[in-house]
Amino acid sequence: MVDVAVIGVGQTCYGMFPQKSLKDLFHEAAVDALKDVDKGLDPMEVEEAYIGSLSTGGAQLGNFAPLMMEASGMIGASSRHIENACASSGFAMRDAVAAIASGRTKIAVAGGVEKMSDLPREKNRLWLGVSGDVEWERLAGTNFAGIYAMMARRHMYEFGTEKKHITIAAVKNRANALANPKAQFRIPIDLERAMNSPNLASPLSISESCGITDGASVIILCRADMASNFTKEPVLVVGSGGASDYVAIHDRPSMTTLEGTRRAAKQAYNMAGIAPKNIDFAEVHDCFAIAELLAYEDLGLCDKGDAGKFILSGATARDGICPVNNSGGLIAKGHPIGSTGTGQIYEVVNQLRGRANTKERQLMNVRYGLTQNVGGSGAAVAVHILKAVG
Amino acid sequence: MVDVAVIGVGQTCYGMFPQKSLKDLFHEAAVDALKDVDKGLDPMEVEEAYIGSLSTGGAQLGNFAPLMMEASGMIGASSRHIENACASSGFAMRDAVAAIASGRTKIAVAGGVEKMSDLPREKNRLWLGVSGDVEWERLAGTNFAGIYAMMARRHMYEFGTEKKHITIAAVKNRANALANPKAQFRIPIDLERAMNSPNLASPLSISESCGITDGASVIILCRADMASNFTKEPVLVVGSGGASDYVAIHDRPSMTTLEGTRRAAKQAYNMAGIAPKNIDFAEVHDCFAIAELLAYEDLGLCDKGDAGKFILSGATARDGICPVNNSGGLIAKGHPIGSTGTGQIYEVVNQLRGRANTKERQLMNVRYGLTQNVGGSGAAVAVHILKAVG
Repeated sequence: MVDVAVIGVGQTCYGMFPQKSLKDLFHEAAVDALKDVDKGLDPMEVEEAYIGSLSTGGAQLGNFAPLMMEASGMIGASSRHIENACASSGFAMRDAVAAIASGRTKIAVAGGVEKMSDLPREKNRLWLGVSGDVEWERLAGTNFAGIYAMMARRHMYEFGTEKKHITIAAVKNRANALANPKAQFRIPIDLERAMNSPNLASPLSISESCGITDGASVIILCRADMASNFTKEPVLVVGSGGASDYVAIHDRPSMTTLEGTRRAAKQAYNMAGIAPKNIDFAEVHDCFAIAELLAYEDLGLCDKGDAGKFILSGATARDGICPVNNSGGLIAKGHPIGSTGTGQIYEVVNQLRGRANTKERQLMNVRYGLTQNVGGSGAAVAVHILKAVG
Repeated sequence: MVDVAVIGVGQTCYGMFPQKSLKDLFHEAAVDALKDVDKGLDPMEVEEAYIGSLSTGGAQLGNFAPLMMEASGMIGASSRHIENACASSGFAMRDAVAAIASGRTKIAVAGGVEKMSDLPREKNRLWLGVSGDVEWERLAGTNFAGIYAMMARRHMYEFGTEKKHITIAAVKNRANALANPKAQFRIPIDLERAMNSPNLASPLSISESCGITDGASVIILCRADMASNFTKEPVLVVGSGGASDYVAIHDRPSMTTLEGTRRAAKQAYNMAGIAPKNIDFAEVHDCFAIAELLAYEDLGLCDKGDAGKFILSGATARDGICPVNNSGGLIAKGHPIGSTGTGQIYEVVNQLRGRANTKERQLMNVRYGLTQNVGGSGAAVAVHILKAVG
């Protein structure tokens, strides 16, 4: 298997950009990534591209990926659009890695884009609903907030987790986002106010949920043995895992474990030859705050059932032993669905290179960073482990 | 790079199946493929799956691939939905091949499914329209028939191609489909009637166009060095090429060449280490009859501009030197969009194994078979070359 390196990363600000089209957003992220390749890269040299998106803005149903390639001057690439609900670009990353690992491709792009602000609120809710299970969950009237609320209730019942433990994840991520200029929600919230914010689906409140976001992200990858031709600071992709699971939670053996995360993580750790304790920091899929707690356990960062205690100890805070969602996470950095997976890679690569925008936000002595990107309520999960060179 | 083999192929009949859901169709093709693995395969052993679809039936917008995995008992696979308009499953095949070639995956599935019969005619036209260029071509009021008609006119102007040459492709494919029990349109048409059938977009008539089709296809692949564990008759994937191009034809340097086909074919020939003259038969993307003629030229089966003479010579007929669309092609076998790419692989694998359903339809002494799958009017093209073992 050919080793794979990231040579450039790009991302738009996450937020509401009604004036920008899908093409504008993707172009902006692509230009940002190309500029990041410090020794230069002709966009025509990109051979393969994997573009994640859920709804493609509702406009260009087919040939969405070639259109994004056009918009970014990468017309020489063989491109395809990848959909795996909220894990679309996590899988774009996984497939770009495989293309290079196979020896077939020298330079590939993984990216993602979503434009959610051009739909009315009701329609956004509908579109998000059809990413869950349509035949049972949606017909029964529930939505993602309802499903994650059930997971939260069950976790509280099984393991004595408290509402406060869940809320802390949201408060931490909102605080983390303050120093991230590309984050959408840069307004702090204190624990008391977050605990008492209106319920979305009890026990989850509005403060514990991600929002509606526009954004794009682009990662440029190449064979590790060629990386130094393009950049002084490549970052190695040492682990990649992917897994699917039943789409509806009633089909799964447990409501408090995402089997997809466990299986994808196991693959990624095995490939990297490391254990969870070697992970220095992580960006995980906190679409709702409870999802971050589940991720701690399913990724092996703490024992099953201990997520409440783990977050309470400060382990995952910026100055903790394993900072999680230092970017602000989906809750505060934002969750432009198709962009989220490669947006997590963007953050991890910048941290591993020591290029966080401020000293305050830069994590020290980090070697291994992990990303976890979840589709639906766990139907598809991609996990990646990146490693600083030298 | 690890060598890749096909160990099982499955396909539904192509046609109008209003009583069957997307899940039913995919399940049927998956069961057909699993049965085809003659030494047996537990569906849980499938590690990765790449599922092509354009519209996913309009129902399950997100997590479509995990849902299809559930429906076919392959819940252990890491799956994603791939969209590249009409080339969706050609790219699913390409990515499944990369996964195995990388050494990461032992057993993978490439498949595709489309259900077009549950939409009213107007809506189908609309959905198909958004696979072309939405901002220019569609807004200007044209559709795929109009675009291919322009290509046909230009080919007639530049190279003296006659309407009759184009029509012959349709008549040949309709005749070929008669012996294919899985083909949709098994009613022969004679040249005179086809020449005089109502215009869709002059010079293309209704007889020279594909229709509206439901169907699914599934290909099971594995490492070539493990193939004999699963089947007595593996088929090798010796070439894979993919390319994108401008979505709208006004951006391309020529209207009579699909650059995407040329670039994808070049990659596939190079990988296989063979030349076009080594291809014994091919399944090409004849969404309209003119597209088959363009494919002859862009794949190098004949010289540029000579497609009319080439088809007139009978070279691509069932008993010709290089039979093309012996299955009936998109025009007569049918074109269930997301299924077409892997449906072509299904046909080629069966021919290479000597397993065509009738003696009449079986091609003799074939070693190399090629597939060409086109998205939009050439914005994405996947080309594969398969080789019989022994």
